[in-house]
Amino acid sequence: MHIFTNIIGTFIIDNDTIVDAVPFKTIQEYQNKEQSEKKLLQQYSKAIPLPAEKISSVLPLFKDKQYFSQFATQNIILTKKSIKESVTEDQLIIQAIANINELDKTANLLTKRLREWYSLYLPELSERIYSHEKFTSLVTEKNKQQLLQELSLTEEGTMGAKLNEKHVEEIKQLATTILYLYDLRKNHEQYLQKVMKEYCPNLLELAGTTIGAKLIELGKGLKQLALLPSSTIQLLGAEKALFRHIKTGSRSPKYGVIINHPLIQNARRDEKGKASRSLADKLSLCARLDYFKGEFKALEYKKELEAKFSHE
Amino acid sequence: MHIFTNIIGTFIIDNDTIVDAVPFKTIQEYQNKEQSEKKLLQQYSKAIPLPAEKISSVLPLFKDKQYFSQFATQNIILTKKSIKESVTEDQLIIQAIANINELDKTANLLTKRLREWYSLYLPELSERIYSHEKFTSLVTEKNKQQLLQELSLTEEGTMGAKLNEKHVEEIKQLATTILYLYDLRKNHEQYLQKVMKEYCPNLLELAGTTIGAKLIELGKGLKQLALLPSSTIQLLGAEKALFRHIKTGSRSPKYGVIINHPLIQNARRDEKGKASRSLADKLSLCARLDYFKGEFKALEYKKELEAKFSHE
Repeated sequence: MHIFTNIIGTFIIDNDTIVDAVPFKTIQEYQNKEQSEKKLLQQYSKAIPLPAEKISSVLPLFKDKQYFSQFATQNIILTKKSIKESVTEDQLIIQAIANINELDKTANLLTKRLREWYSLYLPELSERIYSHEKFTSLVTEKNKQQLLQELSLTEEGTMGAKLNEKHVEEIKQLATTILYLYDLRKNHEQYLQKVMKEYCPNLLELAGTTIGAKLIELGKGLKQLALLPSSTIQLLGAEKALFRHIKTGSRSPKYGVIINHPLIQNARRDEKGKASRSLADKLSLCARLDYFKGEFKALEYKKELEAKFSHE
Repeated sequence: MHIFTNIIGTFIIDNDTIVDAVPFKTIQEYQNKEQSEKKLLQQYSKAIPLPAEKISSVLPLFKDKQYFSQFATQNIILTKKSIKESVTEDQLIIQAIANINELDKTANLLTKRLREWYSLYLPELSERIYSHEKFTSLVTEKNKQQLLQELSLTEEGTMGAKLNEKHVEEIKQLATTILYLYDLRKNHEQYLQKVMKEYCPNLLELAGTTIGAKLIELGKGLKQLALLPSSTIQLLGAEKALFRHIKTGSRSPKYGVIINHPLIQNARRDEKGKASRSLADKLSLCARLDYFKGEFKALEYKKELEAKFSHE
């Protein structure tokens, strides 16, 4: 006599016949199957769990049509539930950082357009101001008179045309909209920082928001990142250069997304490779500490690395 | 005895020597050179305008260093002035339509990202709503409860995860920002309409805002567009297909940007080519009427074409 539980109920099976059963009405009952099993075992104290090798002989019992719709509905509910519960901080972080990349591209594209358009009106401003964001705010905040003054120019001195207010208004609206994109990017970054502070404080501390999130994106999650060797972490984001190196024998890349890390940026030229190796080592440790909910050690690592590689 | 005006003044020249001169202090004096010439001619009534073939013998007179800085500054001022005055409605229209294209691309890119991100939370919405803009507004306007109701779902029924308000807030901010892009696109279109109503009313009436502006963009201005043969206008925007046709002998394209014109869209399948030829003919006429400030005939053309090709 055996006891066997599947998604639609717990069954007592004797000689390939269903003797008794506790059918599940909700998926919760399946998830608390110990209760129904306990209940039946009180009645059938001799029943033992069905051994794996016997399952194939039991399955034909469930071929009966009466079970079909139950199997179907329960399975759908269970799958939906699994999908629902599969959403973790990983996915949220990946979406946010991917969107930051998109916003960067978008804002760049539109600011280039803004520069071209505004240059019909006051070309000297675009020549003088390199930062896209600064340029965009100046266009929204100041009128031509003020900007001419700042550029020490007169209306006669500029090569820009005199335009009606309706034309200028249109250009300014574009600038205002671009500023919303820049604002959203900042918001996303703050949001990422908040999420990562709880989810992966070590990685956040050592890598910073953007690089940390990119590592999670490229590693496809904190768990996977924690399992990667540090040499892979060092090159995450440099796949193109790496494959070129393998294919054509060009120089092997030294760093992927971590190239923008201040530690690498500030390292002496001949030590950049070494610095990136050490940084990747520690980042790997951070990812593992965070995944296994270990202690907070990133600050220690950071100081250690800075002492080694930062030369002012 | 000759009288000769260049950018720095009006000169009386006799026997290859400068006898008298009225130097220009501002560029306005050069532009009103008739006045200074008149003044000198009162004194030197025998002076005649320098004939073209004698110019080369006079030019050495101006090699003197005293004129150098004057030539330089006056030239710069004049060039700046020409640049300033070269900005026409053409450029403004081209910038606006180019920016509409950019906004379309950008809004698409970000809405795709929004759909992915929001689908962690409520995937059924993205499946149900095809229009990017509709989807984006729904995300900003309604909360999950309301949307679940509209989709006839329960919180248990959706495959989306339960997310904290801080996560949802971030997604909604993205949606709000995308709506600004859609708004700006609409503003640009209204603006274009206003500008084109004055600048090229015929083209606007027959082609519509977007197609009309794209034709001006592709033709690089209304003047150039007016000078193009109608067969070129028919294919503006289909350059890639045209060159492929020439190179590989693939089928020749029938239409460029005018493919989206309602007349072509509503024409019978076997008449689309003919309709696009007739439309291009009339568009060419419109561009010429507009450039040479002719009368308003576009409505007449439009009715004519509609009578010929529109089959409900």
